[in-house]
Amino acid sequence: MSLTSPEVSAFAQRVPAYLQRLERTTDALLPAASTDPERLHQAMRYACEGGKHLRALMVYATGETLGVAIDKLDAAACAVELIHAYSLVHDDLPAMDNDDLRRGRPTVHKAYDEAIGILVGDALQTSAFEVLANTAALDAEQKVRMIRVLAHASGSLGMVGGQAVDMASENKTLTLAQLQSLHARKTGALILVTCQLAGIAANASEAVEQALERYGKCIGLAFQIQDDVLDQIADTATLGKTAGKDVAQHKSTFPSLLGLEQARQRADALFDEARDAARGISDQAEALLWLADFIQQRDH
Amino acid sequence: MSLTSPEVSAFAQRVPAYLQRLERTTDALLPAASTDPERLHQAMRYACEGGKHLRALMVYATGETLGVAIDKLDAAACAVELIHAYSLVHDDLPAMDNDDLRRGRPTVHKAYDEAIGILVGDALQTSAFEVLANTAALDAEQKVRMIRVLAHASGSLGMVGGQAVDMASENKTLTLAQLQSLHARKTGALILVTCQLAGIAANASEAVEQALERYGKCIGLAFQIQDDVLDQIADTATLGKTAGKDVAQHKSTFPSLLGLEQARQRADALFDEARDAARGISDQAEALLWLADFIQQRDH
Repeated sequence: MSLTSPEVSAFAQRVPAYLQRLERTTDALLPAASTDPERLHQAMRYACEGGKHLRALMVYATGETLGVAIDKLDAAACAVELIHAYSLVHDDLPAMDNDDLRRGRPTVHKAYDEAIGILVGDALQTSAFEVLANTAALDAEQKVRMIRVLAHASGSLGMVGGQAVDMASENKTLTLAQLQSLHARKTGALILVTCQLAGIAANASEAVEQALERYGKCIGLAFQIQDDVLDQIADTATLGKTAGKDVAQHKSTFPSLLGLEQARQRADALFDEARDAARGISDQAEALLWLADFIQQRDH
Repeated sequence: MSLTSPEVSAFAQRVPAYLQRLERTTDALLPAASTDPERLHQAMRYACEGGKHLRALMVYATGETLGVAIDKLDAAACAVELIHAYSLVHDDLPAMDNDDLRRGRPTVHKAYDEAIGILVGDALQTSAFEVLANTAALDAEQKVRMIRVLAHASGSLGMVGGQAVDMASENKTLTLAQLQSLHARKTGALILVTCQLAGIAANASEAVEQALERYGKCIGLAFQIQDDVLDQIADTATLGKTAGKDVAQHKSTFPSLLGLEQARQRADALFDEARDAARGISDQAEALLWLADFIQQRDH
């Protein structure tokens, strides 16, 4: 099991330092909670707290594997987490998934109000593009490429489009292909883009870009299958968000289409393929291998 | 009256061509209405239809005054209109201003539904940054500068922050300074940024940038005072949005603080100052002079 090998635990040991860098970048970017309008800025910070920050870790792990200087990764790691945070705030709104609990705490519109929830999401999205435009560590060409791929991954052909399809799919039975297409957009695109952003920071070759794409796509789909499995088998306290929602909202899921055991096997096969892709990126891909293990073993 | 002078009507004659360029840029950027998810893409296009497109015209007018090639202005003109359109869609939501009518038609959440309203706003914001990152007419440094100023103008210290203050100010009597600060953010920042974007396209000197800032700030504040006046005196059919809302929502407005006649005089003085600033930018500032006249004379 690669989690116990010394090279792999070396990345695990750096995780706290990476999360600290993420926190510092975010803290420096967002206006202080005491800045007018205070309630908005407080709520923006509240929305960024908690969470596992897997997407930021994927940026750092990919960048490390490609030999990129850490400071070239900070803005990208921060930007993907801001996009993720904004999408959670908006997805939780009453008109969307109407959820009260997120990361073990009240959702933004419950802790504040619905108008603040809308505005917090809006401003966090803006901040994601701002942090990429502002960083001193990248050249202008890299910044523009990063903004382009992040916009594509998070817009109407990516994450937002996936959420629209998801909303429209309640009470419908999807085919497996439809479900995969939905999730490739709703969660997959933002996971894939973490690898692409690190590739841009590394000025990676086209061959490396393709290997990154394979890794990112496998992790993204495996992550979502696992999410569906966890929604079905885990409890709300462990998840930090409402469990059993997919069934309650009559959503098609990988377990509902494939059965629980088959869904798990499919996820495991995708994690294996991701590890294979990681080895194709570099013979020192410990960080990416560790992340695949880490995500595979998560219980929330 | 400058509206009748030959130089000035030359810009007026170009307005239809500028609006056509805006439409072409937006049409090429946004996925077709037949692209999956169709309902989202239809609604995104619906949200961009209608309106006077004053902000796009300000980009073109400023750029023309500074001698910028038109194709360097297209992405900026499109981006500010996308940010404006997204903000209208979100501001109209039930949890915000709860409005049924916009640009003479049902608001997005009335024509579609609330979830689509949230997602349309989200995706239009993304598109604004995407069009700037994608344009071939600007160098990477200019794109990054444009993205930076647009993010700043539209985020929590600009437009979104102003909307948060506005929501929190219902049923409160503001001082004139507070009202001006609110509107400098809520509407002023996005109007000012139109001049700044054109300045970036022109690689303008710092002196020109300062004159642009004076023009943009005067127009922005005058525009908002006039908006308050029109909300009070015009009817819903002319405005294309619900009239008399400020009084109904117990909002402080320039007429409520200054009286109607004083508010009008203050707007007129600001339009005069804007014209003065325009003459400081160039001795061939007909486009900017015409825009000041055009905005001053609008009835909706």
